[in-house]
Amino acid sequence: MTAARTVYITRKARFSAAHRYHVADWRPERNREVFGASNNPFGHGHNYDVEVTVAGEVEPETGMVLNLREIDGIVAEEVVSRLDHRHLNEELPEWRARVPTTENLAIDIWQRLAPRLDRKQARLYRVRVYESPDLYAEYLGEKE
Amino acid sequence: MTAARTVYITRKARFSAAHRYHVADWRPERNREVFGASNNPFGHGHNYDVEVTVAGEVEPETGMVLNLREIDGIVAEEVVSRLDHRHLNEELPEWRARVPTTENLAIDIWQRLAPRLDRKQARLYRVRVYESPDLYAEYLGEKE
Amino acid sequence: MTAARTVYITRKARFSAAHRYHVADWRPERNREVFGASNNPFGHGHNYDVEVTVAGEVEPETGMVLNLREIDGIVAEEVVSRLDHRHLNEELPEWRARVPTTENLAIDIWQRLAPRLDRKQARLYRVRVYESPDLYAEYLGEKE
Amino acid sequence: MTAARTVYITRKARFSAAHRYHVADWRPERNREVFGASNNPFGHGHNYDVEVTVAGEVEPETGMVLNLREIDGIVAEEVVSRLDHRHLNEELPEWRARVPTTENLAIDIWQRLAPRLDRKQARLYRVRVYESPDLYAEYLGEKE
Amino acid sequence: MTAARTVYITRKARFSAAHRYHVADWRPERNREVFGASNNPFGHGHNYDVEVTVAGEVEPETGMVLNLREIDGIVAEEVVSRLDHRHLNEELPEWRARVPTTENLAIDIWQRLAPRLDRKQARLYRVRVYESPDLYAEYLGEKE
Amino acid sequence: MTAARTVYITRKARFSAAHRYHVADWRPERNREVFGASNNPFGHGHNYDVEVTVAGEVEPETGMVLNLREIDGIVAEEVVSRLDHRHLNEELPEWRARVPTTENLAIDIWQRLAPRLDRKQARLYRVRVYESPDLYAEYLGEKE
Repeated sequence: MTAARTVYITRKARFSAAHRYHVADWRPERNREVFGASNNPFGHGHNYDVEVTVAGEVEPETGMVLNLREIDGIVAEEVVSRLDHRHLNEELPEWRARVPTTENLAIDIWQRLAPRLDRKQARLYRVRVYESPDLYAEYLGEKE
Repeated sequence: MTAARTVYITRKARFSAAHRYHVADWRPERNREVFGASNNPFGHGHNYDVEVTVAGEVEPETGMVLNLREIDGIVAEEVVSRLDHRHLNEELPEWRARVPTTENLAIDIWQRLAPRLDRKQARLYRVRVYESPDLYAEYLGEKE
Repeated sequence: MTAARTVYITRKARFSAAHRYHVADWRPERNREVFGASNNPFGHGHNYDVEVTVAGEVEPETGMVLNLREIDGIVAEEVVSRLDHRHLNEELPEWRARVPTTENLAIDIWQRLAPRLDRKQARLYRVRVYESPDLYAEYLGEKE
Repeated sequence: MTAARTVYITRKARFSAAHRYHVADWRPERNREVFGASNNPFGHGHNYDVEVTVAGEVEPETGMVLNLREIDGIVAEEVVSRLDHRHLNEELPEWRARVPTTENLAIDIWQRLAPRLDRKQARLYRVRVYESPDLYAEYLGEKE
Repeated sequence: MTAARTVYITRKARFSAAHRYHVADWRPERNREVFGASNNPFGHGHNYDVEVTVAGEVEPETGMVLNLREIDGIVAEEVVSRLDHRHLNEELPEWRARVPTTENLAIDIWQRLAPRLDRKQARLYRVRVYESPDLYAEYLGEKE
Repeated sequence: MTAARTVYITRKARFSAAHRYHVADWRPERNREVFGASNNPFGHGHNYDVEVTVAGEVEPETGMVLNLREIDGIVAEEVVSRLDHRHLNEELPEWRARVPTTENLAIDIWQRLAPRLDRKQARLYRVRVYESPDLYAEYLGEKE
């Protein structure tokens, strides 16, 4: 995968979800101080954009790093069908005790996609999550 | 206000909110059939954009239809501080028994803004609400 | 349909297509002079955005002018599945002898959508076709 | 021009300019109070987007309301080459004694374009000027 | 070029082109299976955005890595005038036997730009090609 | 800070400013030749977007690299309140003798933000400055 001619291909997907920032162990005053309005009890929501970047060598015959239809299928299963139209804290077990910040969402989506996208000549390179046009988080996996 | 030289000035504001589509009088099957995933019990959310258009004559000295800082103050009070970081159905009384569709949000925002923006030489002309880049509703008030 | 409380709801769809500007009855020089590079023999292409606006009264129970899933189904059939990934001049009979300009596309899409979207309390109001972010055409139907 | 089949074609152009809001007859305090930071003595600037909409019948042979290259030539002369990379108040006589608000720019651009774009079967319909993605003004000409 | 103070400057350009995904050695069924609708016989098209990034030290007097007008001239020659309003497979020899995927376009544009943009204190750093807002490929050259 | 699990969080801010490209030591002809219309005597202006990227480990309890409200406060002080609605050359001492190119703005903003954003487990990673949607500069600090 340390190919001489690495190309990075990025696909954007979208989902709409509600979330709330809250640490159960903290007193209400501290939750409010750290998280502000994001601590409001019933949550609020966003249109999220997710950019999934796969890096690899271009397959000479097809001209592709990885067939886009394959990427789309995996992203639909692991990201869109899982998160779209959900209240993350209320409906998804992984967010019951973990704050669904943009940072944590990027890590979580990476961990779901990486095992399914890694190939002999391609691998997941980066997950970028936009909470809004003005805020995004990126995760590139663990570095040894 | 039917001025010879009407100019339309439009200001965009933003808020993030959660909502749910649900009619209490309907059986679960019908709610699901009509609203699909928007009926999920805890709601989901969006980054909303609101475009507020004021029409009027340009005041000759200032070159303005209405001072932008005045529009901004009214929109901040009636729209952003009221709706941002809220779960509409759970936190706002007007959405307890009314489905917070994009259409209804456009009407509701119009009704809050119109009495505050109407002036001798300017009036609210249109409210446009984007739920996402791919869906928006517009309301121009009641026509006799 | 001349309702006191008309709301306009707009849905955006996308398709990618190739096209060519050419009038068969003209000499090559005139085609080149009028159409420039758009007359190149094999065509070029665009990512088109189509905004479909439906106007009507809001149905009190659902809060909707027309169920979005119904709009989506009709637009998918009449616009996206028909035009996406096509060379308009070469593959679609209606564009063999008619120049597929943005203007003509707006009229054609209107004529396909209007009979399917008109309802007792809602009707197609406008079709807007973007050929690029810098060029769009709008058609609102024939006025008597 | 009240054609049965009017199509609206819109072209976007761009220019970057500096401007200042200031009324020479007012005391500094009043200028500051009405215009805020826009009254800063040396001006500030924007990337302006201008959308020029021409309405008319589609010419049957070409499928166009007005040849886009003709629109582009006129907009380049009257808008872009005149305003791009200028300090409006300092370099253009029409803005020495008139505040270059977005509203006034829309009217001024309309007045320059209308006489050059009006044809037997097409006419300028609307000028929209964006000062930023969050603020725009529209002018549709004088109505009798 | 491994300067202490490297700045990256990125310029965006645009072109509209038609293309088709097809491997001549494959049977029709396999082309259809791998490429889907992108294999349609006459091609389809896109509005491409190309972002060209040059990295280098800032020249102290001008404050520039490389004069933007120089970048613009080279990109106009090598990218826009070559690709805009073309059917890539039919009109350009390099795409007759090679699939014009977004990945391959990024490599090809890199190879045309790199020899013309490399300077003593600046060099081409990255080429990014957007086929649509939802898909882009990046190439950073061969790494030894 | 060379954490196993680095996440990059990016915040966008905006300001509108006027600027002029001019080297006092040069003759007018050379200024014109190198800078073109950007050398016009009174300057022009832009809507600038600034993307500030902070890299670090995610704090386990809060799920954040750095509290967004802290980033916002620092960016408001060092960037927006300093540059918004200003003529850079005329009002800010640092730009009197230095050309306010996009490259130099990226370096200057980095130097103001880095000392205020660096923490035990987070540091400023990149400053990106858009002068327009078609031009941006990035600076990642000095590398030893």
